[in-house]
Amino acid sequence: MEAIAREEMTDEGWGYYSSAADDEVSMRENRTAFQRIFFRPRVLRDMSAVDTSTSLLGSPCAMPLYISACALGKLAHPLGEVGLTMAAGRQHIVHMLPTLASSSLEDMCGARALDATQWFQLYVNRDRAKTAELVQKAEQLGCKALAITVDAPLLGRRERDMRNKFSSEPPKVQKGAEIRRDGGTARAISAWIDPALNWNDLQWLASITRMPLILKGIQCSEDALLAARHPNVRAIVVSNHGGRQLDYARSGVEMLAEVMAALRSEGLQNRIEVYMDGGVRRGTDLLKCLCLGGRAVGIGRPALWGLASYGDAGVERVLEILKEELRMAMVMCGCKSIADIRPEMIDARSLQAHISTVPADRLFEINYRPLPLVSRL
Amino acid sequence: MEAIAREEMTDEGWGYYSSAADDEVSMRENRTAFQRIFFRPRVLRDMSAVDTSTSLLGSPCAMPLYISACALGKLAHPLGEVGLTMAAGRQHIVHMLPTLASSSLEDMCGARALDATQWFQLYVNRDRAKTAELVQKAEQLGCKALAITVDAPLLGRRERDMRNKFSSEPPKVQKGAEIRRDGGTARAISAWIDPALNWNDLQWLASITRMPLILKGIQCSEDALLAARHPNVRAIVVSNHGGRQLDYARSGVEMLAEVMAALRSEGLQNRIEVYMDGGVRRGTDLLKCLCLGGRAVGIGRPALWGLASYGDAGVERVLEILKEELRMAMVMCGCKSIADIRPEMIDARSLQAHISTVPADRLFEINYRPLPLVSRL
Amino acid sequence: MEAIAREEMTDEGWGYYSSAADDEVSMRENRTAFQRIFFRPRVLRDMSAVDTSTSLLGSPCAMPLYISACALGKLAHPLGEVGLTMAAGRQHIVHMLPTLASSSLEDMCGARALDATQWFQLYVNRDRAKTAELVQKAEQLGCKALAITVDAPLLGRRERDMRNKFSSEPPKVQKGAEIRRDGGTARAISAWIDPALNWNDLQWLASITRMPLILKGIQCSEDALLAARHPNVRAIVVSNHGGRQLDYARSGVEMLAEVMAALRSEGLQNRIEVYMDGGVRRGTDLLKCLCLGGRAVGIGRPALWGLASYGDAGVERVLEILKEELRMAMVMCGCKSIADIRPEMIDARSLQAHISTVPADRLFEINYRPLPLVSRL
Amino acid sequence: MEAIAREEMTDEGWGYYSSAADDEVSMRENRTAFQRIFFRPRVLRDMSAVDTSTSLLGSPCAMPLYISACALGKLAHPLGEVGLTMAAGRQHIVHMLPTLASSSLEDMCGARALDATQWFQLYVNRDRAKTAELVQKAEQLGCKALAITVDAPLLGRRERDMRNKFSSEPPKVQKGAEIRRDGGTARAISAWIDPALNWNDLQWLASITRMPLILKGIQCSEDALLAARHPNVRAIVVSNHGGRQLDYARSGVEMLAEVMAALRSEGLQNRIEVYMDGGVRRGTDLLKCLCLGGRAVGIGRPALWGLASYGDAGVERVLEILKEELRMAMVMCGCKSIADIRPEMIDARSLQAHISTVPADRLFEINYRPLPLVSRL
Repeated sequence: MEAIAREEMTDEGWGYYSSAADDEVSMRENRTAFQRIFFRPRVLRDMSAVDTSTSLLGSPCAMPLYISACALGKLAHPLGEVGLTMAAGRQHIVHMLPTLASSSLEDMCGARALDATQWFQLYVNRDRAKTAELVQKAEQLGCKALAITVDAPLLGRRERDMRNKFSSEPPKVQKGAEIRRDGGTARAISAWIDPALNWNDLQWLASITRMPLILKGIQCSEDALLAARHPNVRAIVVSNHGGRQLDYARSGVEMLAEVMAALRSEGLQNRIEVYMDGGVRRGTDLLKCLCLGGRAVGIGRPALWGLASYGDAGVERVLEILKEELRMAMVMCGCKSIADIRPEMIDARSLQAHISTVPADRLFEINYRPLPLVSRL
Repeated sequence: MEAIAREEMTDEGWGYYSSAADDEVSMRENRTAFQRIFFRPRVLRDMSAVDTSTSLLGSPCAMPLYISACALGKLAHPLGEVGLTMAAGRQHIVHMLPTLASSSLEDMCGARALDATQWFQLYVNRDRAKTAELVQKAEQLGCKALAITVDAPLLGRRERDMRNKFSSEPPKVQKGAEIRRDGGTARAISAWIDPALNWNDLQWLASITRMPLILKGIQCSEDALLAARHPNVRAIVVSNHGGRQLDYARSGVEMLAEVMAALRSEGLQNRIEVYMDGGVRRGTDLLKCLCLGGRAVGIGRPALWGLASYGDAGVERVLEILKEELRMAMVMCGCKSIADIRPEMIDARSLQAHISTVPADRLFEINYRPLPLVSRL
Repeated sequence: MEAIAREEMTDEGWGYYSSAADDEVSMRENRTAFQRIFFRPRVLRDMSAVDTSTSLLGSPCAMPLYISACALGKLAHPLGEVGLTMAAGRQHIVHMLPTLASSSLEDMCGARALDATQWFQLYVNRDRAKTAELVQKAEQLGCKALAITVDAPLLGRRERDMRNKFSSEPPKVQKGAEIRRDGGTARAISAWIDPALNWNDLQWLASITRMPLILKGIQCSEDALLAARHPNVRAIVVSNHGGRQLDYARSGVEMLAEVMAALRSEGLQNRIEVYMDGGVRRGTDLLKCLCLGGRAVGIGRPALWGLASYGDAGVERVLEILKEELRMAMVMCGCKSIADIRPEMIDARSLQAHISTVPADRLFEINYRPLPLVSRL
Repeated sequence: MEAIAREEMTDEGWGYYSSAADDEVSMRENRTAFQRIFFRPRVLRDMSAVDTSTSLLGSPCAMPLYISACALGKLAHPLGEVGLTMAAGRQHIVHMLPTLASSSLEDMCGARALDATQWFQLYVNRDRAKTAELVQKAEQLGCKALAITVDAPLLGRRERDMRNKFSSEPPKVQKGAEIRRDGGTARAISAWIDPALNWNDLQWLASITRMPLILKGIQCSEDALLAARHPNVRAIVVSNHGGRQLDYARSGVEMLAEVMAALRSEGLQNRIEVYMDGGVRRGTDLLKCLCLGGRAVGIGRPALWGLASYGDAGVERVLEILKEELRMAMVMCGCKSIADIRPEMIDARSLQAHISTVPADRLFEINYRPLPLVSRL
């Protein structure tokens, strides 16, 4: 089934898909780290019924996976974020709406299915009044959680992509924000993001909304423990921002392993829900994260590629494939439900081995090879 | 000698042979894991006579190797499983007959040499009466052991192969089983397999036959210990089903190392015989498994490739080469007999290192390169 | 910004740059070792102002980086070392002047900016009177420290480079030194270097100058401890001489990790400043060294490539890029200042793994592929 | 100097040289293992005079290296073993004469320089009278030690080479031995070798000669300890027979590390001299073996390639290059003499990591690519 879906996706769709592990070390690590985890399946268990459903911050969903906040979705397809949210709703999974969306918040929330769950991802503005206004609008429009991006005091060096994107359409959500079309591009559209954001601001953010707070971009156990002990934090996303912020940031899955070990050793593993994103492309990747103790994973590019290929139907297909793959992996490991998934079902002893298989003298070559063009735009 | 045999096999035969490590991570791991084990040979021992013979579940055989159950043998050669069993008989090794055979059970057992040993591999039917009938027929026809496949509540995603196979000929053994030619293929021919099979069913299985029970598809020490302590289990096969069930399952040889360590630490290493399959292509691979404590190894593809090339004579040649390679490896390590083989004759300290040497960004490419065609069919 | 600068540099400039990891094992290790270190960034810290400045042996500088002593700078550009020192001065970083310069010491010191810092690198002459004269001239001309090269009792095997270089212009500094144009080249210009130099000579060297002594070329913890306990040593440079002295010398960054661990375990980490050189090409490399406890890093080739491309302006551009990259990496790791940089911000557990990813049978091929030509000369 | 010598060697000579790491796993391991050892050089030591000389079993020699026994030397050059022994004599190093030589023992010993040392390598005949006669002739002709090959109860699978070799010329030494030209080749010329040779035969061998006994082919610490405690053994060669006997035998250098650790822990390191062979191609390789505690290393192919290129002069050039490389490596590590070489001068912690960098699916391809032809013959 999956192979057929992939063949259908060819040309642009599969082109995006196959370029997943593109040109950054941390980006590659996000994928490579999964290759260092193997399964320890259990057999002779009754697998006549298998259920992938779970709940995230109290919202039920069909599987422990959500579509993460991706900026400027209309670059992939005219439907943009609306297409993503339609697919997520039909598949009963959570969609995290981006601040830097190319659709308006009203449009995104308006496209929500009746029983669907949306979260709102927030870049905090230097002008806190604007942030308060935005957060309260998101809550009013029905968003169920607020995911504050904490790993981006400045946006990383993504000149080529951002420059292309910027020429076509500015993001809709922050209409009032200053956009300087002269020097810079990524810097221009993100100049209003506050680099001074820190732990002390969380109390204020909690005070302006009833939505539970998620910290998106935690990267080590020390910060995970701070988050778990913080009275206003309900969940964290362990992530290296898709490898786009700091090169040689560790992979999401490796950080997840460290974070869960630290939370467990302090008895805090149930105080917060822990998600991760970065490099999830297969149901087996998802199962590995669940074995490590993650509550859910976020996906970005795969959803965008589905969107670019077939609009919301393409996104749905990607979600269906991932769910079927997860279900098969659960069957093979002897897990009837998410609750059956155990840490001892994986062998992650090699996870810490940062042995690059790319010779140093090929890194520049790889990093500067031309990227596949986004020809559908 | 071996090089000549290989040259003779060229075109189809060698084509199959060289495509052994084909397109799945766990499949590759089955081979790669052997590359992480090195020998610690003993010298200055009298090697004037070397004997590779052993016994499996009480049946004597010429070497600690059997032909494992491979579905649909006629896809390789018109003789199908009958050719395999003729060769196994002449070489005095065990043949494990498959449930999903393309020859009838009567034909397979009828081709058995006088002093040869056959085992029967079983997929358990949802309709237990059919299973009982099948098992009793196998026993009646002279099979000496019953190998119950425990790692396949569902068959894995093998669309291309199964689709091709299915078009030519349905399996003969389960004549009564429903075969839906519409949607699905692998799913269709295996729809009758019971996903609810579990430890509690073993007692019933033991009650319907006097054949000793083998559990085929154990994948971690926990299940190996359950098997060793189970009153009805006489042997297990440590296997990842040729890498065809769950990707990122560990290699057979790595699981064998774990399982033997666990059995030894519980003093259970003599309670059951432990076999493994997956990736054995050389006599040195076989010797490594014996050093780890395995009683025998199963081979699948090599036998099929021999069959496809030269019928039963090709299978015999493969078996002869493996026996000669094993004998030479034993000579070089200072082992006159199977009983001389010792754990300290290998250095397996690197076995656990799951460091993929395939960069993540090449995995898709490798997995979707065209497979060599089976042109003899 | 960086990508643009690199595009401008193309042809010769970028040619040099991309050939950074050229043809020696230790040279490659200098780069590869950095690939085995990953970051553990801290988030939610106020990053509204970030400062990269520090001081080296009491001299303030804009970042913890200096231009190391590179022989025969005019091979890269007619300005030679004068161009390097101009750029270093304008960027407020230290320049370490080479003994084997192609400019005179007077010219190099004369080009020093008002508030700039220069150090002098010394090869010790068999004729100590000449060394004393040279050292005193350097001090008189305003050099602030004396870096004694300790890893070169003989110059390594660098026949091709040295032969080419030698034909164009002999070094200016050691005017009186014998240069034999017959047999040899590297050997000829370095024949006066004293292979008998040893720890006992340091007291004499300290007696002829008030400049603090730096030992350049320490390669293991034993020698680092000797240096730290030596009354006359104020700093060391951990270095494998760019991989040009002994093949299979360890990488600079790996030696730095060992040396800092040893100094800390003896409580000597504050007795000397520890620098390193070898393979630094990115701001993230620099930050990794600082996390390990290094006080500063030296760069060689990157500065020469900038020089070859655009003269002093090219060098300045290289320095600007490195400073901006360091600043961004500090922001992403949550460091407002050099003092905020902590050992726990990196994961260097894989640093010791000397697993070559270059198959042995490709080493000769790689080592003897043609180097990019230096066409600007 | 070295580069020039190599350029002179090109075509056949360098062709052989670059094909050193040819087609077997253990052969590659012999080279690859050296890549996992790095140096920890000491600096600031008086290196005004450096001496590479040592003694082996009491015989002085110019460096800790000998030419090992290579069968059928005339395949490389008409001079055959005589050319090797002339070069070894002029360079004051030991030559180990092979039983399977293509020159007569009289010719080889007759070509010995006045102050040169020769050892005799022995395959033991099933007919012990013939062995006694041969050993006593070797002693009479002036050989100073007897190296008994203990790792070859049968010769390994080397069909192509042995077949080619055999057609040209049978070995001269064992004139009386039966040579069957029909079936087999390697087997034919070695059929007289006794596979029953064992520890109990050593006493008899010691009784027929006053030459000290060397055991050639020890491969693990257990056998090294047996040898060290044996009253008749004076030295051992740790070796995997150039990777030609058992594939997945460990590399010589790795076995050396294990053997020396075992001898030291039993206080037996001075009871026997320990040599190794396998993969030595550089002076740094040699120094690494000495750091591990080896007394000397043997070379085979490099000498043969020198011989094939320029006869005895080519061999001498190879020896000169290796000595100069060893001298430079000693200078860079701070060793004035062989006695200064210390275990702590290397970092061999990664030596045990058997992580193949050759993907499993390329092994067959590599093993069966055509070898460079020996066109000078």
